[in-house]
Amino acid sequence: MTGKDFLNPWQALEAIRKTAPIIHNITNYVVMNNSANALLAVGASPVMAHAQEEVVDMVGIASALVINIGTLSNEWVKAMFKAAERAVERGIPIVLDPVGAGATPYRTATARSLVTAIRPTLIRGNASEIMAVCGEQVQTRGVDSGEAGHAALDAAKAVHETWGSIVCISGETDYIVGGKSIYEIRNGHPMMTRVTGLGCTATALCGAFAAVNRDYAQATAQAMAVMGIAGEMAAAGAAGPGTLQVRFLDALYTMTEQDIDQRLRIGA
Amino acid sequence: MTGKDFLNPWQALEAIRKTAPIIHNITNYVVMNNSANALLAVGASPVMAHAQEEVVDMVGIASALVINIGTLSNEWVKAMFKAAERAVERGIPIVLDPVGAGATPYRTATARSLVTAIRPTLIRGNASEIMAVCGEQVQTRGVDSGEAGHAALDAAKAVHETWGSIVCISGETDYIVGGKSIYEIRNGHPMMTRVTGLGCTATALCGAFAAVNRDYAQATAQAMAVMGIAGEMAAAGAAGPGTLQVRFLDALYTMTEQDIDQRLRIGA
Amino acid sequence: MTGKDFLNPWQALEAIRKTAPIIHNITNYVVMNNSANALLAVGASPVMAHAQEEVVDMVGIASALVINIGTLSNEWVKAMFKAAERAVERGIPIVLDPVGAGATPYRTATARSLVTAIRPTLIRGNASEIMAVCGEQVQTRGVDSGEAGHAALDAAKAVHETWGSIVCISGETDYIVGGKSIYEIRNGHPMMTRVTGLGCTATALCGAFAAVNRDYAQATAQAMAVMGIAGEMAAAGAAGPGTLQVRFLDALYTMTEQDIDQRLRIGA
Repeated sequence: MTGKDFLNPWQALEAIRKTAPIIHNITNYVVMNNSANALLAVGASPVMAHAQEEVVDMVGIASALVINIGTLSNEWVKAMFKAAERAVERGIPIVLDPVGAGATPYRTATARSLVTAIRPTLIRGNASEIMAVCGEQVQTRGVDSGEAGHAALDAAKAVHETWGSIVCISGETDYIVGGKSIYEIRNGHPMMTRVTGLGCTATALCGAFAAVNRDYAQATAQAMAVMGIAGEMAAAGAAGPGTLQVRFLDALYTMTEQDIDQRLRIGA
Repeated sequence: MTGKDFLNPWQALEAIRKTAPIIHNITNYVVMNNSANALLAVGASPVMAHAQEEVVDMVGIASALVINIGTLSNEWVKAMFKAAERAVERGIPIVLDPVGAGATPYRTATARSLVTAIRPTLIRGNASEIMAVCGEQVQTRGVDSGEAGHAALDAAKAVHETWGSIVCISGETDYIVGGKSIYEIRNGHPMMTRVTGLGCTATALCGAFAAVNRDYAQATAQAMAVMGIAGEMAAAGAAGPGTLQVRFLDALYTMTEQDIDQRLRIGA
Repeated sequence: MTGKDFLNPWQALEAIRKTAPIIHNITNYVVMNNSANALLAVGASPVMAHAQEEVVDMVGIASALVINIGTLSNEWVKAMFKAAERAVERGIPIVLDPVGAGATPYRTATARSLVTAIRPTLIRGNASEIMAVCGEQVQTRGVDSGEAGHAALDAAKAVHETWGSIVCISGETDYIVGGKSIYEIRNGHPMMTRVTGLGCTATALCGAFAAVNRDYAQATAQAMAVMGIAGEMAAAGAAGPGTLQVRFLDALYTMTEQDIDQRLRIGA
């Protein structure tokens, strides 16, 4: 079996649709609706809960925990730690989206403290977020910041080596570091960057795929491929980002094995 | 006049469109936008406010209060109690959506304490939520949990007898307990379960119909019928849940007496 | 150059698309997603952040600050003040949306305290909100409340004279007070009132235009014109408010100089 066949997301997608895994999200206000709809469209069962009084119980019935710091505040961060502790106990995957890490010291510090304490199964962010999470680690290695791609990839490797987390850098090409090799996914469409929360949606889908595929690097590659393929299907004929967002959910819902086979651009 | 004619929602829908009643929602982050848009599309005037400093005043200008515990936290629960107290004083209907009751002890306890203290005009939830609200009450009656339908209906009857609330169990068939007879609504479309927050939207619409029809059991039946009919209209030709969500709002906005007459599947 | 040419928003729109200014929003839960999507569709870079721990830093990288009290609570109001103080220091425009001012004493008091302390660059609201912000000021001037239009316009002038803020009263005709003359924009479509958060979206777009055009009254007129034109483009052929909302984002994204020239109805 070739790397490409091995990574084909079809069987994992079918598994999500059949088992409807519960994905517990502690995420930001902006994208809660999008994330829930994307998880429903792909066949999963989203729950959103952030109260410290219940996150531990909610993690107890979930198959994956997704933590996103997009609109963070202290009470929510406390809930994130509590939820993550229970997820570690139960051995379910934890996916972290360090939204905006690097933009403010509070965000960067929160993202790093979550990474250090929780050692998430997967961290998914764009290049600058991953570099912010890595922080001085990369600086002290003398990474050249001139070429963002290489610097981010080095940061991802450093994060993986230090904390054990798989790291996904999303962008025009998505890179996944921490598996047998570095996976590269080249699906997607530029108009996706004009819809809010599609990065956060990708993170949520990573949770769904991790819930059904214990090879987490591979699951991440599959989730990112499904995101990109749905984006391509949605962009075809879309008049703009409003239509794209609607058609994206339709594409997640209707995606067939043939859609995947025709569009998949994944490598390892 | 037959039961069906009596329950036809057309006149109530027209009343909402003419009077644009203010519906005060204390609801969850995931669905605030959906609920507001559905209320606007049906002709009502939504307000969303949760601060303890203002909920009492906001209830003072509203025609119905909708409480939804979907993303609850302690401060919000306090505001729910304050708002409900004022609604009781003013005699306006209170609709409660016990989202996720049964999923965590905190949610179940919050839902039950709201029911016990507030005695909402209407409680709308799915079968498992209604059973969780009812709790031991049903257990001690030895209800057979093998057939969810019957058990939930027994729970609904017990809740109605104990606290006086009308109870709506939504599902493929919606059951409304607490009126002259048990109303059954068979409108709707399976794809609606793949859009987040349509249950919460139903609850918000129940608030709008209760604001214009003081026969609250009947108003609930009318709201659930309009939800289901709009869902059917939206699903016809929809490529997936993204499109369905958009067309659902269009259907609420454009729904005619003929649309209702052709599709209504309601019984008593 | 005529007033109309001078106010034509095309060049400012192009500037937003080219420079992608960061717009920092402290806004309400209901519309966060809409506002972010509208800012992305028009070419800006939205950030949403409300934690007191980071708003000052976030303002530090933003080109405009948008404050919206739609679902206010005390902790958020504190963050609004902190953020505004930093925005004043940096000399970036502050846009305030006093959502619901007049509906509850808490909202009215919060809106007024923000206006008094911050002296926002721009205040955008509907007639009743602007009148509530102005408050007794207008009453003591003996404004006749019989004609809402005139009373609101007098309130806007009083607010401008007292605190120096430009004031935009949005409605079927939008009025902008505080520039060389009173600008009037007559673009838009009635169905826009049936979509939640389009007022808040207008406020966010005012932030984007103020970020690229230091003649803030003119920038406001341009933003309101682009809102209205996008609404007209979206309403053409829309089956209802669901479709309108989707097409509105498409229109912001695709709007050409020709679209503007054909539809612009602006005067000074």
